[in-house]
Amino acid sequence: MTLSKSWVASANDANHPFPLNNLPYGVFSVDGSEQHCGVAIGDMILDVTTAEAEGVINLDDEPLFDLPFWNPLMEQGPAVWAALRARLTYLLAEGSEEQDKVEPLLVPQNATELHMPFAVSEYTDFYAGRHHAQNVGTMFRGPENALPPNWLHIPIGYNGRASSVVVSGTDIRRPWGQLKSPDQEKPAFLPSRRFDIELEMGAIVGTPSEGPITVQEADDHIFGYVLLNDWSARDIQAWEYQPLGPFQAKATATSISPWIVTKAALEPFRCDTPAREVPLLDHLKDCGPMLYDIDLSVTMAPEGKPATTIARTNYKEMYYSAAQQLAHHSTSGCPMNTGDLLGSGTISGPTKPERGSLLELSWGGKEPLTLNTGETRSFIEDGDTLTLTGAAKGKGYTIGFGDCTGTVLPAHSSPYAR
Amino acid sequence: MTLSKSWVASANDANHPFPLNNLPYGVFSVDGSEQHCGVAIGDMILDVTTAEAEGVINLDDEPLFDLPFWNPLMEQGPAVWAALRARLTYLLAEGSEEQDKVEPLLVPQNATELHMPFAVSEYTDFYAGRHHAQNVGTMFRGPENALPPNWLHIPIGYNGRASSVVVSGTDIRRPWGQLKSPDQEKPAFLPSRRFDIELEMGAIVGTPSEGPITVQEADDHIFGYVLLNDWSARDIQAWEYQPLGPFQAKATATSISPWIVTKAALEPFRCDTPAREVPLLDHLKDCGPMLYDIDLSVTMAPEGKPATTIARTNYKEMYYSAAQQLAHHSTSGCPMNTGDLLGSGTISGPTKPERGSLLELSWGGKEPLTLNTGETRSFIEDGDTLTLTGAAKGKGYTIGFGDCTGTVLPAHSSPYAR
Repeated sequence: MTLSKSWVASANDANHPFPLNNLPYGVFSVDGSEQHCGVAIGDMILDVTTAEAEGVINLDDEPLFDLPFWNPLMEQGPAVWAALRARLTYLLAEGSEEQDKVEPLLVPQNATELHMPFAVSEYTDFYAGRHHAQNVGTMFRGPENALPPNWLHIPIGYNGRASSVVVSGTDIRRPWGQLKSPDQEKPAFLPSRRFDIELEMGAIVGTPSEGPITVQEADDHIFGYVLLNDWSARDIQAWEYQPLGPFQAKATATSISPWIVTKAALEPFRCDTPAREVPLLDHLKDCGPMLYDIDLSVTMAPEGKPATTIARTNYKEMYYSAAQQLAHHSTSGCPMNTGDLLGSGTISGPTKPERGSLLELSWGGKEPLTLNTGETRSFIEDGDTLTLTGAAKGKGYTIGFGDCTGTVLPAHSSPYAR
Repeated sequence: MTLSKSWVASANDANHPFPLNNLPYGVFSVDGSEQHCGVAIGDMILDVTTAEAEGVINLDDEPLFDLPFWNPLMEQGPAVWAALRARLTYLLAEGSEEQDKVEPLLVPQNATELHMPFAVSEYTDFYAGRHHAQNVGTMFRGPENALPPNWLHIPIGYNGRASSVVVSGTDIRRPWGQLKSPDQEKPAFLPSRRFDIELEMGAIVGTPSEGPITVQEADDHIFGYVLLNDWSARDIQAWEYQPLGPFQAKATATSISPWIVTKAALEPFRCDTPAREVPLLDHLKDCGPMLYDIDLSVTMAPEGKPATTIARTNYKEMYYSAAQQLAHHSTSGCPMNTGDLLGSGTISGPTKPERGSLLELSWGGKEPLTLNTGETRSFIEDGDTLTLTGAAKGKGYTIGFGDCTGTVLPAHSSPYAR
C-alpha cells in the first residue's frame, strides 16, 4: 500500500502521522466548547459530530456521534466500522465531489484540546513482553528462574483501574503509598521514590462477547489501538504485590494517546508473533499475523529542558498478540465489553536501549541513565515529562498515534491535601 | 433500637428480613415489565420509580429513579440518602397520613423478578479476613509463614471484573480454564475441577472521590452493603496467579444479594475491628466502629435435594473494615466512583464450621464435607445450589439481605459452544 492522497494538503507528507491512510478517531473541543468526535486528517480535524448532524455522514437511523466518545460506533461492529472508513476516505480523498461540504467542517488541530477518545469500561494490563519479563525476572529471581512457569503458556495479566485512565497531556501527581524496603523493619507511608513508566500499546475492545472466544474471533472484536503508559510505583508494588498482584502501584494513572488508530489503518503492518518457545495449547494458538510492526520510542525531558530519547523498540517484540490476550481473557466466561482496554504489557526489545521501563533501563536503579542534558536518572523526578511515540512506516506514508505524554508533579505535602 | 411498626403487617414480624427499620433498595419487574427501583417492606415492594413519577417521593428537580439502578441516588450523598429514608419511613410507618396514596404502589414480592440493584462501576476484591488468610496461608506455606509480611499492615486486594457481577438467582456456568497440577508436566485446557465459593460482604461506594481519603471519609462515602459470593476456580488460580494475582479464576461470576442494605439500617449493629496484632499506620488507623455484627451462613443443596448449612460465621470476624479498604484503595490517588463494589474478602471464623469457602472447609479437598443427604463434597459439583444468607439481629427485629444464591451448571461440552 502507498500513500492515498487527500485534498487536505498537509496530509500528503510522507512523515505526517495523519495521512488519508490513517484516519484515527478522537474527541476534541475548541476554546472550552462542547466536545465532539473528530477524525484527524493532516493538520486538521474533521468534526464528525457536526458532519453527522448535517447529514454528511449518515450510518444509522440513530445518531452515533452525538456523545463525546466513540463507544456507540465501536459497538456497531466491523461492517459499520468499514462503512464509516469508506465514507471518510471518500469525503477526504483528492477529487472528492463533496469537498465543499466538508471544508467548513475542518478545524485546525492546533486550535483544539483533545479529550479521552472513548469511555473505558474496564482496563486490563498484561505482562506479555518476552524481554521485559526476562529482564524483570532476572532482576528479582536470577536468569534461570526469570520466567514464571506459566509465562510461556498463557498471557499473564491482571485487572487494572479503568477510573485511572487519562488522556495524553494530563499531569500525573506522584503518589503516596505504603512502602517497606527489605532493610526496614516496618513500612512507612511516603511519596513513591521509584515512580516509573511502562511503554505499552493498548488494544480497545469494539464488540462485546459473553463466553470464551477464539483467537480469530478476538481479533475481529478489536476496534483499534492506542499508545499506553502504565505509570508504576515500583516501591509500592514491591511491598503490596504478594500474594494478589499489583494494586495501588498501578492505580495512580494510565495515560493513553488521544487518537484511536483503527485496525483497518494498521492492516498493512500486521506481522507474526515470535517463534513459540513451547507450543501453545489450541485455544491460544496463532492463526494469522496479529501483531503489528510499529516503531515505538520514549523520551524524557527534565523540567524546562530538552528531551532525550531513552528507549526505542517495536510492538512486534511482544510474545502474545492482543487477540491472544483477549481470547485468554474470555476463557473463564468473563464478559468482555465495548470500551474494554487491554494493555499489552511493557514492550522491550533484546538490547539495553530497547527497554520500555526505567526499572529495566537503570537495572533497578543500579545503572542510572545519563540524559543529553548531563543529568542522570534511575526513576522519574518531579517535573520530568515522559513521552511515548509510535509510528508504522508504509511506502511513502506514516501511520502515527499522536504523542502519549505526561508530566510528573511533586507529591502533595500531605496525602490528604486537596 | 426496637422494631418500628409499619402498616404493612408482614413487616412487623421479629424474624422478617424487611421491617420498617431496614428499607433495602432493589430493582424489580413484574412479568417482564419495565424494571423499576423498589424498596422492600415486609412481603411487599414499594415501587419507588412510580412513587416519584406520581410525586409521592420528590427529592430533586431531576428524577432520581427513572433508570433501573440506584446509582443516581447513590451519587447524591448522605443528605439526600437521609431524606429518602426519612420520607420512606414516614410513608410506610403505622399511622402514616399518606397510606392511601402508597397502598396502590405496593407489589407483592413473590410476583416480581429481581435484577441488579445498581450498575457496578468497578469491582475490587479484598483478602482481609484474618482466619481465612491464616487458613489458606497454612495450607500453602505452613502455619509459621501463613500471613504474607504486608498482611497486618494493609488490606490486600486486587481488581476484579465488574462485568462478571450478577444478581442472586443467576445460574453459574462451570468455567473452562488452563490448569496444571504440580505432578503434570504440561498444562491442559479443561473445565475447572475445584470450583468454589467465597462468603463475603460487598460494600458499595456512593459518592466519588479523586485523591486519598481518610478512613472516616471513606466510611462516609459508603452507601450500603450486599452479600457477595466470589465464585473461584481454585485450579485455574493455582496455575495463573504468580506473579500478578488471580485473573480468570475469579472472572466467571460474582453473585450479589438483590437488596442494598443501607448503612443507615445497619447503624445499630456497628462494632469494632478485632484487636490490632501490630499497630496500623496513621492513614489506616481505626477511628470508630466500622464493622457490623451480621450473622452469615452458607448452605449447599445438591440438585433436587434439601440444603445443608455448611458454614456459619459473622461479618465482625473481618480484620479490616470496608472503610479501611476504601481508604487504602484511594491512597495512590486512584479515583473511586459511584457504584464501585468492594468485596470484603472471604469471611471465616476461628473454628472449622465457621469457614467461608470449600477450600477451607474441606482443607484443600483432603477432608471432604458430609452433607445431610449423606453425599460428600470437596468442591462444588454440577447442579449444586450455593446460598449465602445474612441477618443483623436487633431487639425484636431483623435486618436481612435476601438470599445470595446460584446454581452451578455443567461446563459446556466445548468451551466455544454457545
